[in-house]
Amino acid sequence: MKNNFVVRDINLASKGKQSIEWVSKWMPVLDNVYRQYKTENVFKNKKVALCIHLEAKTAYLALTIKKLGAEVWVTSSNTLSTKDEVAAALAVNGIHVYAKHAATRDEYWSYLETILKNNMDVTVDDGGDICEYLHTHSKYGKNLKGICEETTTGVNRLKELEKSGKLLYPSIAVNDAKSKHLFDNRYGTGQSTWTAITQLTNMNIAGKTVVVAGYGWVGRGVATRAQGMGAEVIVTEIDPWKALEAKMDGHRVMTMLDASSLGDFFITTTGFSNIIRMEHITRMKNGAFLSNAGHFDFEIDIPSLKKQAKSCKVVRDEIEEYLLTNKKKVYVLAQGGIINIAGGLGHPADIMDLSFSVQLGCLHFLLSTKNLVPKVYKVPTEIDRLVTEEKLKAEGITIDK
Amino acid sequence: MKNNFVVRDINLASKGKQSIEWVSKWMPVLDNVYRQYKTENVFKNKKVALCIHLEAKTAYLALTIKKLGAEVWVTSSNTLSTKDEVAAALAVNGIHVYAKHAATRDEYWSYLETILKNNMDVTVDDGGDICEYLHTHSKYGKNLKGICEETTTGVNRLKELEKSGKLLYPSIAVNDAKSKHLFDNRYGTGQSTWTAITQLTNMNIAGKTVVVAGYGWVGRGVATRAQGMGAEVIVTEIDPWKALEAKMDGHRVMTMLDASSLGDFFITTTGFSNIIRMEHITRMKNGAFLSNAGHFDFEIDIPSLKKQAKSCKVVRDEIEEYLLTNKKKVYVLAQGGIINIAGGLGHPADIMDLSFSVQLGCLHFLLSTKNLVPKVYKVPTEIDRLVTEEKLKAEGITIDK
Amino acid sequence: MKNNFVVRDINLASKGKQSIEWVSKWMPVLDNVYRQYKTENVFKNKKVALCIHLEAKTAYLALTIKKLGAEVWVTSSNTLSTKDEVAAALAVNGIHVYAKHAATRDEYWSYLETILKNNMDVTVDDGGDICEYLHTHSKYGKNLKGICEETTTGVNRLKELEKSGKLLYPSIAVNDAKSKHLFDNRYGTGQSTWTAITQLTNMNIAGKTVVVAGYGWVGRGVATRAQGMGAEVIVTEIDPWKALEAKMDGHRVMTMLDASSLGDFFITTTGFSNIIRMEHITRMKNGAFLSNAGHFDFEIDIPSLKKQAKSCKVVRDEIEEYLLTNKKKVYVLAQGGIINIAGGLGHPADIMDLSFSVQLGCLHFLLSTKNLVPKVYKVPTEIDRLVTEEKLKAEGITIDK
Amino acid sequence: MKNNFVVRDINLASKGKQSIEWVSKWMPVLDNVYRQYKTENVFKNKKVALCIHLEAKTAYLALTIKKLGAEVWVTSSNTLSTKDEVAAALAVNGIHVYAKHAATRDEYWSYLETILKNNMDVTVDDGGDICEYLHTHSKYGKNLKGICEETTTGVNRLKELEKSGKLLYPSIAVNDAKSKHLFDNRYGTGQSTWTAITQLTNMNIAGKTVVVAGYGWVGRGVATRAQGMGAEVIVTEIDPWKALEAKMDGHRVMTMLDASSLGDFFITTTGFSNIIRMEHITRMKNGAFLSNAGHFDFEIDIPSLKKQAKSCKVVRDEIEEYLLTNKKKVYVLAQGGIINIAGGLGHPADIMDLSFSVQLGCLHFLLSTKNLVPKVYKVPTEIDRLVTEEKLKAEGITIDK
Repeated sequence: MKNNFVVRDINLASKGKQSIEWVSKWMPVLDNVYRQYKTENVFKNKKVALCIHLEAKTAYLALTIKKLGAEVWVTSSNTLSTKDEVAAALAVNGIHVYAKHAATRDEYWSYLETILKNNMDVTVDDGGDICEYLHTHSKYGKNLKGICEETTTGVNRLKELEKSGKLLYPSIAVNDAKSKHLFDNRYGTGQSTWTAITQLTNMNIAGKTVVVAGYGWVGRGVATRAQGMGAEVIVTEIDPWKALEAKMDGHRVMTMLDASSLGDFFITTTGFSNIIRMEHITRMKNGAFLSNAGHFDFEIDIPSLKKQAKSCKVVRDEIEEYLLTNKKKVYVLAQGGIINIAGGLGHPADIMDLSFSVQLGCLHFLLSTKNLVPKVYKVPTEIDRLVTEEKLKAEGITIDK
Repeated sequence: MKNNFVVRDINLASKGKQSIEWVSKWMPVLDNVYRQYKTENVFKNKKVALCIHLEAKTAYLALTIKKLGAEVWVTSSNTLSTKDEVAAALAVNGIHVYAKHAATRDEYWSYLETILKNNMDVTVDDGGDICEYLHTHSKYGKNLKGICEETTTGVNRLKELEKSGKLLYPSIAVNDAKSKHLFDNRYGTGQSTWTAITQLTNMNIAGKTVVVAGYGWVGRGVATRAQGMGAEVIVTEIDPWKALEAKMDGHRVMTMLDASSLGDFFITTTGFSNIIRMEHITRMKNGAFLSNAGHFDFEIDIPSLKKQAKSCKVVRDEIEEYLLTNKKKVYVLAQGGIINIAGGLGHPADIMDLSFSVQLGCLHFLLSTKNLVPKVYKVPTEIDRLVTEEKLKAEGITIDK
Repeated sequence: MKNNFVVRDINLASKGKQSIEWVSKWMPVLDNVYRQYKTENVFKNKKVALCIHLEAKTAYLALTIKKLGAEVWVTSSNTLSTKDEVAAALAVNGIHVYAKHAATRDEYWSYLETILKNNMDVTVDDGGDICEYLHTHSKYGKNLKGICEETTTGVNRLKELEKSGKLLYPSIAVNDAKSKHLFDNRYGTGQSTWTAITQLTNMNIAGKTVVVAGYGWVGRGVATRAQGMGAEVIVTEIDPWKALEAKMDGHRVMTMLDASSLGDFFITTTGFSNIIRMEHITRMKNGAFLSNAGHFDFEIDIPSLKKQAKSCKVVRDEIEEYLLTNKKKVYVLAQGGIINIAGGLGHPADIMDLSFSVQLGCLHFLLSTKNLVPKVYKVPTEIDRLVTEEKLKAEGITIDK
Repeated sequence: MKNNFVVRDINLASKGKQSIEWVSKWMPVLDNVYRQYKTENVFKNKKVALCIHLEAKTAYLALTIKKLGAEVWVTSSNTLSTKDEVAAALAVNGIHVYAKHAATRDEYWSYLETILKNNMDVTVDDGGDICEYLHTHSKYGKNLKGICEETTTGVNRLKELEKSGKLLYPSIAVNDAKSKHLFDNRYGTGQSTWTAITQLTNMNIAGKTVVVAGYGWVGRGVATRAQGMGAEVIVTEIDPWKALEAKMDGHRVMTMLDASSLGDFFITTTGFSNIIRMEHITRMKNGAFLSNAGHFDFEIDIPSLKKQAKSCKVVRDEIEEYLLTNKKKVYVLAQGGIINIAGGLGHPADIMDLSFSVQLGCLHFLLSTKNLVPKVYKVPTEIDRLVTEEKLKAEGITIDK
């Protein structure tokens, strides 16, 4: 069967191919999991849909699934993160890809519909949109063996459906695998947030004061790396235990209101909205930088900032300067979107290797396990363990038994 | 009622008093929890037994409980850690104390018996000996409202009793409180292990290779502090996720066999026995130091070492030199006992402030809550939260809501 | 007088203007030094030539000198680092600019000649080419009050001239100012090297082994930041004291031959040639990355690598893959050129603020001091102090007297 | 010739012998330098005087010199640091030792006189008292080939004598050797200061605010280790470059007046007097700790504190509690004397190995070099290099050439 596709420009394919080839060099765990499955027929002629940020690492996952014999449909979970050259490369490599950078909301949902009406066998979701569509259009779910969900947000949606008794399909909380959440948030986001900030701003971090809102995995990663770059770190928290841990890790801890006037760089990592508000922004130093490393772009109250600032102008790629009525200027990075993806290259390839290997393992589990019921399943421990052990092996590490 | 006691030398009381006064200055959380309870009569005339390492911080807990109106009985959970001067100070301050440094096993159990036959209302255990006694002598448990357990080991004993349906009393797993286990192992043991090692050995740590067996809370604390002192750290683990975390935290990870020939200092933190065995010791560099930061003294196989070494002599306080048949010498610190207590001052006072405040809160809970059943209870969240919030307050920290 | 210029494309000026405006926001020290001089006439109608990497920060120095009343001539010290849009922006702002990205060697020297035959009053050199030209064409030096030199290399050239009695002009070793060399190498290069590497490769650094050749200021900066990102660091050195310092800072120390098979990333920082040779490269792991943070591109023996490799291809921007005869692949970043400039944005703006403020102060000194003789002068302490004190003021820091 | 001695109690010798044997295990560099000299007769029957802190490491140096054939006379440079058991052990091992812990000033000078009137060939000084004596009693210097000086203070005294033309003997500034000053201050004092503080106080350092006065080698060592223990560090300085370095190393920088109200621990490292004065102490938090890691005990103005406090009492070994008129209490460690020696074990043995090997090398140089003149000599580079290369060898490190 020939593949169909909608992409921005098919001529970008060779550039996309180069990107995919690059990341493929650094995903040996995925290669090894693939090797374990390739002599079986579990994926043979199965229909698999992926709705994830469409860039090179995702593309390599799609191509790996295809090599296992499946038909693969791909769209992006966020049209702003779509790389058109990568989509083009998938199109010429036999993937059914429907994705354009900066597609409209209508286009986005039409892509999802186009894919899902082909009656998928299994799907990978990143935020829960496939899940939502298939729960409102259950006719297209008749073949569905299950859904793998990549994010906390999507897992929460699934659990609500489960609690209310409305969940229709077996689902796996991939996000909760130890080999995913222990590594990608702390080390992946921790590092890539700072690469993005220093690349966008050309600023020196040593000697600066960095305010990190939230001390969960992402916050710890961002704070640890800031400390490692010679910054002084201030942490804000609402959880007293995390606040005390931050203190004992050598950071200063205070309210955002107190921190407002001290920070040179502000980074939100909380998952909650309106963490940085006008009451904070008006107290900031002239020249403060605001950015967000959380999943959603609502942690900084940019709508109010836009409304109340005297002016707003783009002064550099992904940097907007807001002139406040108090005459100070503040700089917002990547419009408050998730900085490491919206303003950078996303997670390192060798970190995504872990997460996508878990995805492949979970798809295999859904396709090969009988009698699964509509329920949110944990990632099977043997998959979680397999991925971490393969990663250790790839790093040349042997441990005690 | 006058108190009874058995102590080594009552004349040591003034020296003990000085130690207790010192630590009392750094336990403001316990003072604040005390203040919340002092207008109530919950502890009034109640009998409370403590069986914990008997040193200054424990003594201050005992005196605080007494100030709340209780009769307090104290013995030590480990006769080697008993400070005779502290016991003497308790004796002259109205505490029923039965403890001598290096008491025999028979004396130890007779102390417990003497205390428990007075029919306690509540008890604090550290390892589970009170629990064992009261399950085999249940006639003395007729007034017992419950047991608070400080350690992982003791909590495990309680859970086995619960599972087998033999648990007779409500019990609280104090060890599992977030305000305890997140802090005392990582920060308390982490630091005090290194103070003990550097004080005992007078060695420079910068530039040395430190092998840490185990990457749980204690292992992380010990490894982080070693890194902070300029050492290169090697971690050994059996858990692949922890091994990978150690690697990503910048440590080298390998088997103990491979690490054996590389380390200058070896520190076990696993909770398992025979982690360092003769096959490792014979590969070590001449001059290697062996120590243990885990609860029990069985992590280094000292019995085999004693048997197979050509000679063993004490070369400095708490340091034994073993001459091996391969002509190399290795040095064992504190006979393989828990280094920060057996070879040092134990946890810092301001860290024990957290743990003992949880203990006081849990005793209060047991005494003031009706209808508790024989079951292992978690520490009530409001107590856990209270302690951490009081600690933040004591540090002058305000956080967001 | 109207300015003359040779630039690639004058239409790029508005883009260049944006870049210059951005960095100008983060150079408050230069602004303050400017303010101290602006009421004097020292620079009035003086001719000043700059031959430095031509990018935004350099451009802002040029414009600042022009604001003080001077005529400013600018070319680039390295045609590969020239930003055409910045050159265009200078051209439309009245600077005599002669620079094109990737200009030929002949063009380069013709630019220098065009500028220098206008008989400069003072010059800023970066590597010593102005100096060389004016020593071979001394007729153009008749008005010359002196030369400021930015680099170690250039300072060494000057000292040789001085020693041989051939130095014709007063010269200042700007590089040796404490406010320059203590900061830009360690903090500036340290950080920007890693931003470049992570941006070019999209690789995770935590858990990797990084081999740093050389433990001078640059090497320390690169090693410290690597450690701060969670890498294990190996240092190679030829100086025993630096080797021992590296060891005591927690790094492993060994020969390059031993390190060859262990590293994931190799970074040379020595200033010497052929630090990484084929005997090392053939021992490396498959997938090793080679890069250089030293001034010259001769630290990795790329000529031999090119000759002996089975193939070489560009696999990503600024990444060349070499397939060795042993079937392993290694990746060379930025062709072995100075990674933070050739593969990134160069030093952070707020670090260059220090160096360029020293330059401005030294130009002022040359123009306003009588009776200077042909000699290599140190930066006057009062200028060095002024710049650092202004930096502290800009950071809002007050210190004791 | 039988040796003479004055010690507190000769019966302590076996305990002292144990201490000396312990440190001798960790001084392999001194052993190797000894081996290079032992076949020569340079030290044969020469008279060598040492006036250094008299503890185990010094004793091992004395015994090593004796093994080379010299007659060795020893006294202590500071009577408070004298270990009586070590002195006793030297006495029974044939060293002419004159030293008692807490000897009076008169006794101290009588010991020096007793030794020096024996007409030494070479001497080792620590602070310059031998030098002073021999310049006022030059009749005893008739055989003197030269003086080795261990400290900055002593070197400064020597340089003043040299400048004023009054220096009578060749002298070597041992303190300035790279293998000494690059290592013992930063790593030795850095670590041993914290061992002393945590051992004396039993306080947790993680989460505390540490104020370090001075950012020279000692200050950097103390600050780096504090950071490594999880503290937040504030640095005070008078030198703007060091202040800026401290800032870029991630510390906060401010005046002592501003820091006063923020610190939990204060540590002076400046070498200047009255760094912490009453104006600072009265602003401190209740419970602040004051200590000094500089050579002299004058950095904290304890005389004023004693006068103005309402009371002062010893509350624990080496801890004095001062009650201020503002009702707050502050704690002074080791009476403001150098904390790592007065309150601890001094430098680690393996760090002193470097310094004392340089001493041995310099004594050898003085005894074997002809035609030295009264002048302050640098340590010969070949000795400095030898010591560092032997240290690398002892650590099993090979470096590139």
